[in-house]
Amino acid sequence: MDRGAGGHVIDSLRGQNLLSLSDLSREAVVEVLDTADTFVEVNRRAIKKVPTLKGRVVASLFYEESTRTRLSFETAAKRLGADVLSLAVASSSVKKGESLRDTIATIDALGIDAVVMRHASSGAAQQVSRFVPHVRVINAGDGQHQHPTQGLLDAFTVRQVLAERGATTGPESGAALFDGLRVLIVGDVAHSRVARSDAAVYVTLGAEVRVAAPGTLRPPGLSDWGVTIVDDLDEGLVWADVVVLLRLQSERGTGAFVPTMREFTQTFGLTVERAATLRPETIVMHPGPMNRGVEIDSAVADEPRAVITRQVTNGVPVRMAVLCLAVAGVTEGRGE
Amino acid sequence: MDRGAGGHVIDSLRGQNLLSLSDLSREAVVEVLDTADTFVEVNRRAIKKVPTLKGRVVASLFYEESTRTRLSFETAAKRLGADVLSLAVASSSVKKGESLRDTIATIDALGIDAVVMRHASSGAAQQVSRFVPHVRVINAGDGQHQHPTQGLLDAFTVRQVLAERGATTGPESGAALFDGLRVLIVGDVAHSRVARSDAAVYVTLGAEVRVAAPGTLRPPGLSDWGVTIVDDLDEGLVWADVVVLLRLQSERGTGAFVPTMREFTQTFGLTVERAATLRPETIVMHPGPMNRGVEIDSAVADEPRAVITRQVTNGVPVRMAVLCLAVAGVTEGRGE
Amino acid sequence: MDRGAGGHVIDSLRGQNLLSLSDLSREAVVEVLDTADTFVEVNRRAIKKVPTLKGRVVASLFYEESTRTRLSFETAAKRLGADVLSLAVASSSVKKGESLRDTIATIDALGIDAVVMRHASSGAAQQVSRFVPHVRVINAGDGQHQHPTQGLLDAFTVRQVLAERGATTGPESGAALFDGLRVLIVGDVAHSRVARSDAAVYVTLGAEVRVAAPGTLRPPGLSDWGVTIVDDLDEGLVWADVVVLLRLQSERGTGAFVPTMREFTQTFGLTVERAATLRPETIVMHPGPMNRGVEIDSAVADEPRAVITRQVTNGVPVRMAVLCLAVAGVTEGRGE
Repeated sequence: MDRGAGGHVIDSLRGQNLLSLSDLSREAVVEVLDTADTFVEVNRRAIKKVPTLKGRVVASLFYEESTRTRLSFETAAKRLGADVLSLAVASSSVKKGESLRDTIATIDALGIDAVVMRHASSGAAQQVSRFVPHVRVINAGDGQHQHPTQGLLDAFTVRQVLAERGATTGPESGAALFDGLRVLIVGDVAHSRVARSDAAVYVTLGAEVRVAAPGTLRPPGLSDWGVTIVDDLDEGLVWADVVVLLRLQSERGTGAFVPTMREFTQTFGLTVERAATLRPETIVMHPGPMNRGVEIDSAVADEPRAVITRQVTNGVPVRMAVLCLAVAGVTEGRGE
Repeated sequence: MDRGAGGHVIDSLRGQNLLSLSDLSREAVVEVLDTADTFVEVNRRAIKKVPTLKGRVVASLFYEESTRTRLSFETAAKRLGADVLSLAVASSSVKKGESLRDTIATIDALGIDAVVMRHASSGAAQQVSRFVPHVRVINAGDGQHQHPTQGLLDAFTVRQVLAERGATTGPESGAALFDGLRVLIVGDVAHSRVARSDAAVYVTLGAEVRVAAPGTLRPPGLSDWGVTIVDDLDEGLVWADVVVLLRLQSERGTGAFVPTMREFTQTFGLTVERAATLRPETIVMHPGPMNRGVEIDSAVADEPRAVITRQVTNGVPVRMAVLCLAVAGVTEGRGE
Repeated sequence: MDRGAGGHVIDSLRGQNLLSLSDLSREAVVEVLDTADTFVEVNRRAIKKVPTLKGRVVASLFYEESTRTRLSFETAAKRLGADVLSLAVASSSVKKGESLRDTIATIDALGIDAVVMRHASSGAAQQVSRFVPHVRVINAGDGQHQHPTQGLLDAFTVRQVLAERGATTGPESGAALFDGLRVLIVGDVAHSRVARSDAAVYVTLGAEVRVAAPGTLRPPGLSDWGVTIVDDLDEGLVWADVVVLLRLQSERGTGAFVPTMREFTQTFGLTVERAATLRPETIVMHPGPMNRGVEIDSAVADEPRAVITRQVTNGVPVRMAVLCLAVAGVTEGRGE
């Protein structure tokens, strides 16, 4: 069985790896979003736990640290009743000569059910998935390639906001809410795996996606994403139903690509002045962690139309849905 | 609802943050001690578990490492059936620019029930508590400010020892055992959060508290603690029912405040010679980890009247009580 | 009660420490292997969990990191229903002056049931076991001394392979399969705790053990192991039923003992050419992580008669058995 190792489209995540959103069909994406809907209610209860993954072991393998993403995945796994083995970067035996392949082979041999993996190298999750026939691999961010659960939780958040405004969700509504939706992705696209995952999921769901980025922060191959490149950010902001801001990845050497932080903010940041030109109903998103005052002004991040906290909150039900489908092959959290 | 964010007195820890012992009324302290009593028996059983926090998630966030305190809190949380997310210093994404505020906002957004937090900055826990309306914050030590659960477990240990000597515990005995009890705190008071928490809890419970410290290790504001400063350690030792030794915080730059370790030991250490002047029933305490041979001689630490190991043991039921009250709002460990 | 603190033979691991395989009688070893057999089936189920250690707390204390061994032990403990407290090297408060003894005293005082401990110093686990009367100590590797669970899982793997070839296992078969079995241990014996544990367990079980190592990598005291030293590796390979390769411990300064890696491989590596001289049924083993191309050629490691992955897989049931016996004193995983 192919398990999301790339190359062809996956129509359901049941029993599959989640490596990239470019592989997922519209049906597969909607299946995740609908499954996540069933977990939203669980997350509002005092006892936020279901036994779907009871007795399963999920290894959380972060070769690149992210408190936020790790907390979100581990919370999701524990709410499903799974046991979690947490391996932070510093804890790995990279120094002792254990190759990534050997570590992963161990995970496979030990009978661990799933590995949530973050790695600084693009393609790491996919590479690993070839060596572990018995383990489901969930990509939690690989270099500048993909961050699939971020794309899914972003789409889930947009669908949730739109549904609250009048439409309904559920299997019958499918992805209809996204048809013709206008999404603008702004900023450091070149170094952003979130940009790739967001573009993929929104295009798959039928949205129209535009990208606004300094010339030096446009990745090669951008023309293959199925998006339109816009030169005038201000025009794009007026056009957009959804604005996705990206973290300026100064820790990945972006400094070489922008003259100064201040100039980046003046030309591509969502300042208070620029935010005033947005239509009132436009949704403002950021995957976090934010550089407040760089790609987004602090006051804009705290406006009601900015759904940044809700994105974080939705990370748990969406990751519960992904683990549920990939590991147990089920679309709801009641049975085993 | 105020949640222990300071400023006024808390009469019950149910559903509240635990930030400082200065905020807690005598009733609130006795409530914790009585609740802890119900867990002592649980900790003696082979299966030391109750389901009070089943389905709840507790994040253990240590920006400053302490194996001892972290083990104690995580053991307590697991014995209550909670799921624990453990984030050590090295695992945090401080480097990636996630501010403390952003990390904590994530914890709030994820629906985590409580955060046990240690931080090198005084006031960090209180500051954090303002940003997390849905999360209970338990201060596990903030800079030189407070270490509330240490103060509570110290008082619990004293009450337990006194009760074993003839008095009874239970709601009816309340805090009566502490009325007029003579407590002497000795050593590096300036750098010690334990000194502040111990002084607060003993004063609240009605004990008479004296402090013996070199002039250079007396903190500004000591006169506001409700304690008496004594110059003659030897006189204080004869007077005391309880002697609390403090760790000389050489890693916090105490070196600048004492001429030499040896001189500190000669003037303020509980040496074998000095311990011989104590009354036989005087209780000797130390929060650990000890500098054996500096603030306490190794032989004195191993005497029967030194209850240092019992302090560690009592950390678990006391922290179970604090988590129980703060998170579930209940005073016993049976139901949910 | 003696708890495996060395000095005399242990006839059953029930309620005992596991510090070294030199202490275990043939009966005690067979008891572990038979107990592990009962867990193999559990590990093949979708829900791989039994409640034997429900409510027990196991601390995993790795002063020297090993992703592989830590994952294996923590998976085993979680499959038995235990709560696991995981303390990696970086997380310890070694810097704050907490001595190993103080940390372990804390573990004892907190009522933790077992500590799985890895440490760079030979004898660390045994030293620790003297201070913790209430905690079972499982040695997960101490310096160049012992790695007992590795020896047990190696013997378990050999017994499993031999049993599949026609013999039967179970209490009646006992250790009979090992009588006269010819085991050859090859390579960096001096720096290998696996060599010590493997030699001890195979000798105890009645096998004939030979050792092939460069003169510079033969430890002092090798003549007391009950093994024969062979000078001609190629003769040994033809003789052996089981070949155990050892990791060349370049990170422990082996560089000073071998002229070059290449020369080591030429004289003591299991190259493709050398592997061709083995009898077809000879079992090839390696404790991992392998230096592919140094002590073993990559192609040899992937041959069917190399059971290296199966060794990793068997780590879980064998460690479940050890924890079960040492902590709960029971030989099967059904009851509590």
